[in-house]
Amino acid sequence: MSIALGELAVRFGCELRGDPDVQIEAVAPLGTAGPGTLSFLANPKLLPQLKHTHASAVVLEARHVDDSPTAALISRNPHALYARIASCLYPEAPLRPGAHPSALIDARAQIDPSAQIDAYCLIAEGVQIGARCRIGPACLIGPHARLEPDCHLVARVTLGERVQLGARSLIHAGAVIGSDGFGYAREGAAWLKVPQVGSVRIGSDVEIGANTTIDRGAIDDTLIGDGVKLDNQIQIGHNVQIGAHTAIAGCTGIAGSTRIGARCMIGGQCGIAGHLVIGDDVVITGMAMVTGSIQQPGVYSSGIPLEPARRWRRVVAQLKRMADREAARSNPQADRQQDQHDE
Amino acid sequence: MSIALGELAVRFGCELRGDPDVQIEAVAPLGTAGPGTLSFLANPKLLPQLKHTHASAVVLEARHVDDSPTAALISRNPHALYARIASCLYPEAPLRPGAHPSALIDARAQIDPSAQIDAYCLIAEGVQIGARCRIGPACLIGPHARLEPDCHLVARVTLGERVQLGARSLIHAGAVIGSDGFGYAREGAAWLKVPQVGSVRIGSDVEIGANTTIDRGAIDDTLIGDGVKLDNQIQIGHNVQIGAHTAIAGCTGIAGSTRIGARCMIGGQCGIAGHLVIGDDVVITGMAMVTGSIQQPGVYSSGIPLEPARRWRRVVAQLKRMADREAARSNPQADRQQDQHDE
Amino acid sequence: MSIALGELAVRFGCELRGDPDVQIEAVAPLGTAGPGTLSFLANPKLLPQLKHTHASAVVLEARHVDDSPTAALISRNPHALYARIASCLYPEAPLRPGAHPSALIDARAQIDPSAQIDAYCLIAEGVQIGARCRIGPACLIGPHARLEPDCHLVARVTLGERVQLGARSLIHAGAVIGSDGFGYAREGAAWLKVPQVGSVRIGSDVEIGANTTIDRGAIDDTLIGDGVKLDNQIQIGHNVQIGAHTAIAGCTGIAGSTRIGARCMIGGQCGIAGHLVIGDDVVITGMAMVTGSIQQPGVYSSGIPLEPARRWRRVVAQLKRMADREAARSNPQADRQQDQHDE
Repeated sequence: MSIALGELAVRFGCELRGDPDVQIEAVAPLGTAGPGTLSFLANPKLLPQLKHTHASAVVLEARHVDDSPTAALISRNPHALYARIASCLYPEAPLRPGAHPSALIDARAQIDPSAQIDAYCLIAEGVQIGARCRIGPACLIGPHARLEPDCHLVARVTLGERVQLGARSLIHAGAVIGSDGFGYAREGAAWLKVPQVGSVRIGSDVEIGANTTIDRGAIDDTLIGDGVKLDNQIQIGHNVQIGAHTAIAGCTGIAGSTRIGARCMIGGQCGIAGHLVIGDDVVITGMAMVTGSIQQPGVYSSGIPLEPARRWRRVVAQLKRMADREAARSNPQADRQQDQHDE
Repeated sequence: MSIALGELAVRFGCELRGDPDVQIEAVAPLGTAGPGTLSFLANPKLLPQLKHTHASAVVLEARHVDDSPTAALISRNPHALYARIASCLYPEAPLRPGAHPSALIDARAQIDPSAQIDAYCLIAEGVQIGARCRIGPACLIGPHARLEPDCHLVARVTLGERVQLGARSLIHAGAVIGSDGFGYAREGAAWLKVPQVGSVRIGSDVEIGANTTIDRGAIDDTLIGDGVKLDNQIQIGHNVQIGAHTAIAGCTGIAGSTRIGARCMIGGQCGIAGHLVIGDDVVITGMAMVTGSIQQPGVYSSGIPLEPARRWRRVVAQLKRMADREAARSNPQADRQQDQHDE
Repeated sequence: MSIALGELAVRFGCELRGDPDVQIEAVAPLGTAGPGTLSFLANPKLLPQLKHTHASAVVLEARHVDDSPTAALISRNPHALYARIASCLYPEAPLRPGAHPSALIDARAQIDPSAQIDAYCLIAEGVQIGARCRIGPACLIGPHARLEPDCHLVARVTLGERVQLGARSLIHAGAVIGSDGFGYAREGAAWLKVPQVGSVRIGSDVEIGANTTIDRGAIDDTLIGDGVKLDNQIQIGHNVQIGAHTAIAGCTGIAGSTRIGARCMIGGQCGIAGHLVIGDDVVITGMAMVTGSIQQPGVYSSGIPLEPARRWRRVVAQLKRMADREAARSNPQADRQQDQHDE
């Protein structure tokens, strides 16, 4: 695929500084770009790289255009414009409507004729697959699941019973949507399984990463809002609700029935307890532990950056010593003495 | 499926307050229940919801019966009774004995004729599958694995060589049981793989979540006790032993050769080091790090709840400053001065 | 498989103390070994077990030979010699060259005739599979992926487009190599997907654990060096680079574009932020959070070992109180008073 800069400028309605006939064939990072490639500057820290780039064109903001040694496509959001151009340069493989002969499709499933069903898929009774869906190889789609148009299951995705996917959702390999939630009733020493009878409803334009798991609801459904982006290896418990456009990084786990607002950003490896309410526009940094609800928008943390192990052992020892001192204080007499000392 | 309240009362031997002819068709949460549904009250915090529920019946303890505006099934363990009733209302699909034509079954495998083997399963030589097992689609069962009666592999489960599953075990999609442990001998800068020749033995009534991984033992077997419940995305290292009825929440990792007792409850995202011994009835809260053995039953923690990031940065800075002060103290002279100051 | 001790001594060039005709059939731990088994002593803590072992032979260092009640194979690296002997005693199943009839192989793929392709594999156009590769059941190999000789995909491995695997690499079940990275451009409240057009290049002698995920690069490739060992359920973000012989334990996540040096050892459940540089020979203990680059070799930590929950709550409360006190200090007047107090 090769596109002239002039055509890109017209197609995306942006200003071009430079020769419109230059052909772009690929994208490349500023620092290693060569002729025929397009790069972008979104992070001003990379300005020094811009000045020496060998890219044939760079997408950037107007304020940086004079720093560019090469053609420039000007945008107020260079990262987004870059993304759109890259989508043109690297189009998805064309859709091949129809089902591979090895796909096993129940006679009671309704598959739009424009959808593509790859090899070794299993599609159960009552499934509905919308127009132009692309079901990659070895996907399992359980009874009565419903996929709106233009969904893409990359490969080996498992959708449980009655799972619903909004339009244009993209699910990566190994994801399991609609597994049973972790629900038991205690009976003496043993655990009695509580049937998990809800399902999972996923909005439009959702992306779900590789090997991520989302449990079906215990009674009601687990809900993932429009535009939510989930990275790889995330675990979402039963009856969680995630608001529109929230993005969550890899390896984070969210326990059952927690509700997360819209436009949140949650870092990797976080642990979020169950039955909490987290409002809109909350940012949680990586490895934070959330055990209480959060009303106010803002940035929240609890991870501790590492230290050389020797120093860190001192930190931990001192921390615990301090708490013991505090406990001793909470003996009333010690308390009084301490208070005098503090004054 | 519809069942009369009277029939439920008889079947489960519980007291009914209300009309025995009322038909129950579904379960619902107290707050959103409507006619024809059954709900339950296990958590007294939900009493206000009970008082306004539109459920046709509620499972509850005797002490709450007068708060119910509707029919009540009385139990000392409402959550457990609810679970049993829900199992009746939402029965599993009937077993279809026999193997799907696309399942590839080695001639030397022994499959009970009452077992169901779904499409695209691969069953290796020497495998034994007991009565009424339900092997969902695309499961891989390695050589000489053995499944006791009534096991259910939901879909796409991988069982390695010689893995044993006790009766009624339930394994969710994407779980890998019997992968190689992480065992290497150091040789200069490189790592030499140590063959992992043990397997995994799993007790009865075990449930294993989606995309959970359990490594085979290095020499002896990895052991999972009866009634153990493992949530999604848990990682169990080689030669770990987990005692009966222990429950572990999602994303927790347990390193090799650690032994965990019976009836423990371990929160999500915990990290448990190798070669430890954790006794019976230990409760570990979420995101805790376990680097030493635990003898005493009780509740243990090390996770820190998050804070607004600005405050948290102060906490971390102060924590590290304090440890440095402590290090300065450990210079003997500083120590003496400090001791005087502390007195 | 049964091998005489004398043959083992000759084959591995090590000294034997004891009867060369003793036959070894299996390996066993020192404590539970019986006749016909071989054990090893690598950890001096197990010396008491050595003295009472019933193994027929033990691999150990010369300095421990007099403590052995049984035949001894002497090595300066007993763990490594044990590993090599175990590989002889438990050989892999012989390679069966050729493809199972159910494997779907694109006509434009090049498969070495000595390679084994198991049932239900899907191999796309342009794939190259080298000599003696063993492709276990239900693996998906995307367009133009390339496997050097002697690779082993255990089962159900997903390799994305253009992924490259070095010689002798071993990938366990459920691993997904080459999934899209987590890359978006912000547009108002929504996230616009940035096409991920790089791939993943993996060196020789790499092992990758079950359900581990490695994202393809955004533009350039994600790079995994020779001899790297990745445990189960690790998440590697796009454009990460990992140096040769680095070993990483389970459940660790590494965010995009971070570069990790050679011969590092990284514990389980760590969280490593993006765009960092970690040098060679860095050891990071379990559950550490890495948010800054690390130049110096050494051991680094930030995990806190757990405590009884009551004591731990005191620690956390005191920690936060302390930080607030510090904040009060940073009011200049309070600062002055505090300084006087500290003197």
